Amino acid sequence: MALNPQYEDIGKGFVQQYYAIFDDPENRANVVNFYSATDSFMTFEGHQIQGAPKILEKVQSLSFQKITRVITTVDSQPTFDGGVLINVLGRLQCDDDPPHAFSQVFVLKTNAGTYFVAHDIFRLNIHNSA
Amino acid sequence: MALNPQYEDIGKGFVQQYYAIFDDPENRANVVNFYSATDSFMTFEGHQIQGAPKILEKVQSLSFQKITRVITTVDSQPTFDGGVLINVLGRLQCDDDPPHAFSQVFVLKTNAGTYFVAHDIFRLNIHNSA
Repeated sequence: MALNPQYEDIGKGFVQQYYAIFDDPENRANVVNFYSATDSFMTFEGHQIQGAPKILEKVQSLSFQKITRVITTVDSQPTFDGGVLINVLGRLQCDDDPPHAFSQVFVLKTNAGTYFVAHDIFRLNIHNSA
Repeated sequence: MALNPQYEDIGKGFVQQYYAIFDDPENRANVVNFYSATDSFMTFEGHQIQGAPKILEKVQSLSFQKITRVITTVDSQPTFDGGVLINVLGRLQCDDDPPHAFSQVFVLKTNAGTYFVAHDIFRLNIHNSA
């Protein structure tokens, strides 16, 4: 396994695809398909969970419906196992709440020719908390 | 290699140690010792470089002296190769500039019993750019 020279396109493409699903309340639960049943970690606002079933539970517990999202930056790096590290910064607005800045880190790993999310760290409201 | 159960302490300890060196203008160039000569990636404000020599060049090109830093959150996850993924959010002030929010992602990997920074993604001023 080696560095994937397409890491930039993979990162941008994944982010677009992931949020298109996540931000649509009818479709949101399908993000679970990006995660491994056992080997994916998610840290959501400091709360850490592992594996697709618990990640699905978390996603389904979110009470908001519509998300309006603006992506500010997507920085990607290739990893030596053929994966991609992605750092996303932006702003999002849930239903009629005020907009919040957010930070989300993903690590994509390859498995039989497709990518899954091995790591996911999400933080909301990052500029108000300091 | 397996998950390191100490990932939380390793993440927090690294962040403290790294910024103690980086934020001290007399000492800043020594952060280069955290990086591999060839295998470390740094993305600094969207500009990507690889390997300790270029990372040192970048660090030495920074014009500010004193940095005052407040860490808001440090989220760490263990990786299956024995490393640690770290997401740092906080605020920093360079010399007499106004304070800025920042985001920094590190991936630590093990090598002969010690850790090195395999990935480093830094963004400043994250809440003004959206």
